[in-house]
Amino acid sequence: MAEDTNKDRSRPPLRVRRVSLDTGRENVVVISRHSSALRPDVFRGFSRVELRTGPKVLLATLLITDDDALVGPDEIGLSEPAFRRFAEPVGSLTAVSPAASPTSLDAVRAKIQGQSFKPAEIEAIIGDIAHYRYSDMEIAAFLIGSASFMTSGELLALVQAMARAGTQLKWPSPIVVDKHCIGGIPGNRTSMIVVPIVAAHGLTIPKTSSRAITSPAGTADTMEVLCRVDVGIEEMKEVVAACRGCLVWGGHVNLSPADDILISVERPLSLDTSEQMVASIMSKKLAAGSTHLLIDLPVGPTAKLANANEARRLRKLFEFVGDHFGIAVEVITTDGRQPIGSGVGPVLEAEDVMAVLTNDTTAPADLREKSLRLAAHLLEYDPQLRGGSGYARARELLDSGAALKKMQDIIDAQGPSSGRNDVGKLTFDIAATADGTISEIDCLQLNRLARTAGAPIDKGAGIRLFRKIGDRVEKGQPLYRIHAYDQSELDLAAAGAKANSGYTVGTRQPVTGETTAP
Amino acid sequence: MAEDTNKDRSRPPLRVRRVSLDTGRENVVVISRHSSALRPDVFRGFSRVELRTGPKVLLATLLITDDDALVGPDEIGLSEPAFRRFAEPVGSLTAVSPAASPTSLDAVRAKIQGQSFKPAEIEAIIGDIAHYRYSDMEIAAFLIGSASFMTSGELLALVQAMARAGTQLKWPSPIVVDKHCIGGIPGNRTSMIVVPIVAAHGLTIPKTSSRAITSPAGTADTMEVLCRVDVGIEEMKEVVAACRGCLVWGGHVNLSPADDILISVERPLSLDTSEQMVASIMSKKLAAGSTHLLIDLPVGPTAKLANANEARRLRKLFEFVGDHFGIAVEVITTDGRQPIGSGVGPVLEAEDVMAVLTNDTTAPADLREKSLRLAAHLLEYDPQLRGGSGYARARELLDSGAALKKMQDIIDAQGPSSGRNDVGKLTFDIAATADGTISEIDCLQLNRLARTAGAPIDKGAGIRLFRKIGDRVEKGQPLYRIHAYDQSELDLAAAGAKANSGYTVGTRQPVTGETTAP
Repeated sequence: MAEDTNKDRSRPPLRVRRVSLDTGRENVVVISRHSSALRPDVFRGFSRVELRTGPKVLLATLLITDDDALVGPDEIGLSEPAFRRFAEPVGSLTAVSPAASPTSLDAVRAKIQGQSFKPAEIEAIIGDIAHYRYSDMEIAAFLIGSASFMTSGELLALVQAMARAGTQLKWPSPIVVDKHCIGGIPGNRTSMIVVPIVAAHGLTIPKTSSRAITSPAGTADTMEVLCRVDVGIEEMKEVVAACRGCLVWGGHVNLSPADDILISVERPLSLDTSEQMVASIMSKKLAAGSTHLLIDLPVGPTAKLANANEARRLRKLFEFVGDHFGIAVEVITTDGRQPIGSGVGPVLEAEDVMAVLTNDTTAPADLREKSLRLAAHLLEYDPQLRGGSGYARARELLDSGAALKKMQDIIDAQGPSSGRNDVGKLTFDIAATADGTISEIDCLQLNRLARTAGAPIDKGAGIRLFRKIGDRVEKGQPLYRIHAYDQSELDLAAAGAKANSGYTVGTRQPVTGETTAP
Repeated sequence: MAEDTNKDRSRPPLRVRRVSLDTGRENVVVISRHSSALRPDVFRGFSRVELRTGPKVLLATLLITDDDALVGPDEIGLSEPAFRRFAEPVGSLTAVSPAASPTSLDAVRAKIQGQSFKPAEIEAIIGDIAHYRYSDMEIAAFLIGSASFMTSGELLALVQAMARAGTQLKWPSPIVVDKHCIGGIPGNRTSMIVVPIVAAHGLTIPKTSSRAITSPAGTADTMEVLCRVDVGIEEMKEVVAACRGCLVWGGHVNLSPADDILISVERPLSLDTSEQMVASIMSKKLAAGSTHLLIDLPVGPTAKLANANEARRLRKLFEFVGDHFGIAVEVITTDGRQPIGSGVGPVLEAEDVMAVLTNDTTAPADLREKSLRLAAHLLEYDPQLRGGSGYARARELLDSGAALKKMQDIIDAQGPSSGRNDVGKLTFDIAATADGTISEIDCLQLNRLARTAGAPIDKGAGIRLFRKIGDRVEKGQPLYRIHAYDQSELDLAAAGAKANSGYTVGTRQPVTGETTAP
């Protein structure tokens, strides 16, 4: 390929222009079909090109235009992400040539043909991905090649490479605890209760969380109802120094940036392997400097894990990776048959959290109990604490108001958030269509309905649950209330709920074995 | 997902606008960040959206702009290919919503997890691909999922589905012969000699050929030096009715359109499995209505097949598919150690072809002999011909001028081509740097050098070879001459050739076993 590259370098360079196109994770550039420097017949729309200015190189997907107003013959238009990543001024000159694939892609091809990756190959691939050198299609090739099989050595190398590709945090404390839930359960905002309990006890727990991708709320979205979460690294360190804990958005801290890019391709393809999930989570924990990690695996018919066997396999993968990197990992399975708490959506969930922290008598008992149980596990990591006393200590910190005080300190330290944070005043109640006992709740359907109502973008949109599994209900009594800011979104969510409420009433025997009226 | 779709249909439709962006095979649309109908926070750059006007649906990749001059808040800009494929007028209204993946992608996911495709699944996938419903990434997922393993049933279903996705030709003759070479050897323009011989004999041979993708010339590029090749189906049928044969560009006839799309993703990923190659070729032959097919597999160190074992495996795949679909397939391996003929590049190759057809004494003997041998195989398909007399008959048709006459008829029937068709007058000779015997010629390097010189876009650019394997050469004698239209391209090709001529002289013993001076 040396000749081709030389050939194109002999062509006159093009002037950088900025083009107002948001192309997401993909670098996109535009040249004119009348380009003075390129032979557009050599280039095709959507082929890959290489921009080079001195030692700086950008790989991008090419579009071709006839519109001189967009890009002139001696120009190259950089879409917003490409312009930002290339970071060369408007009007500066850059050489453009057809791009060879990144060298690391050879290993991906070999993997597709059944070979294993060497650690150095994975490191090179992840480095290229983190620097936006892979196209979507090339990322897909890596993920799918890896999805068919991944050796334990490959998994470890992947975790290491992903952790190294971004920020790596260090903490002055010998014990840095963390918790993580694999998600999928509506509500379930335990981190916002666990962190203040654990920090109030005195352990270091610098928690980073994600925003919702396919769910109606991530912990970062819900915490943002109470305070700012887009906190940078230095600020995060200050918060942790002052409070022992924090609850910030991980996206701003740049832990495992390759993971964010991989996820953006996994999601549209619905690729979802255990190895990728473990690599994603453990690389972030490794980069975050965690020494002790509790992982929550909810199991239920509409949870991410359908049964104990699936959970066991995942547990072993987490333990294996944790052991290798010296992170003490404890994995617990929890009841994932239904939502945790009564709110679904950022504001409604934040209300649940504050009700638990303020010991409000109407606070959801399941959210309180699950949070205490998780906090108990984490507190047992404290060598000073008497074995088995974690739960009592957690309850003491919660009941005494120490956890609430800690939460207020964290909120003050992270500062106020902006944006609309009231509960959606437009509501619609969904009622039971028959008498009976609630036997099943479809987590996927409730997530979908809450999103249709506007969550997480409308923070006050979502669902307030009135009934849980095992509760008796009479025909006409409300099961839950949909909240929204926007009437058309409320209408759509209501229509969706009328078609499928997500609740099963009385069609199965309740677990207690009572006879239920049909 | 039903709710999401409903939700977005409630939004006001957008007006179609045409945006001058050539995005190749990918459908791309642009909306304003201030869109009146969409919530851009719901959409992200490079996410997939669905346009719907009545029953018509288009899936596309989304870009977002702040530039009202490009796309206004109530508009949706369609890039050129998307505009062409959606075929709705400028200013017409269309509903836009986030796109669910094509349903057929579920089978791709299952395949990635180790399951096999059912024939109906492959049919659905190929149909979606042929209708541009798959993104690059999704096509990559299909190809890579299939690359790890493909059952014989899957291969047959793939051939069938690909053949059905486009034009299917029918011919009045009971015997329709065809030949195909898997490529990789510079020169080797046998089809342009075989077709006139076979057609002159009276067999039907409606040949479609490809243009160069990564080589300096495809048969369609070389034939275009002599006449038009972008001939439609009806016109192709007229040519075949008049001449028994034709030599047209397959791209214009729309045989196996899914294959063209698959190749556009295979190429940048350098995916190259035997099954995909066989499916690609056999689907086109099936769609072309061939009854008898000769396949040429060149074997050599720098050919696509390095040894007889690889060729044998490929042969069996071709035979298996041919047997299933009732195509009589004959597969032969040929000498792929070096170029065939002396010209590399469209005009230079066309000169070789015409020299053979006119029985010019300077015509390359290897091109003549190989063409006669291939034609002999095809002629033997004629039940009227006495077994074993194919070669003699082929030579008779060539020596008598009957093949040349037939070629002139085909050229006249296809009509004159436009564009520049002279040999590049700018030349540079590459000379031997030592005395000796030519022991090796690197096909890949000669292809690369001819492309650097400008082929196939500059039809008269390329290489004229003066020496072949086994020839004696003295230091300073020319090995070959580079031709170009453009001085800078000539310079680059010359520099490339000086760095690596592609010729090995005297470092190995010639095959005859003579002693060679060092």
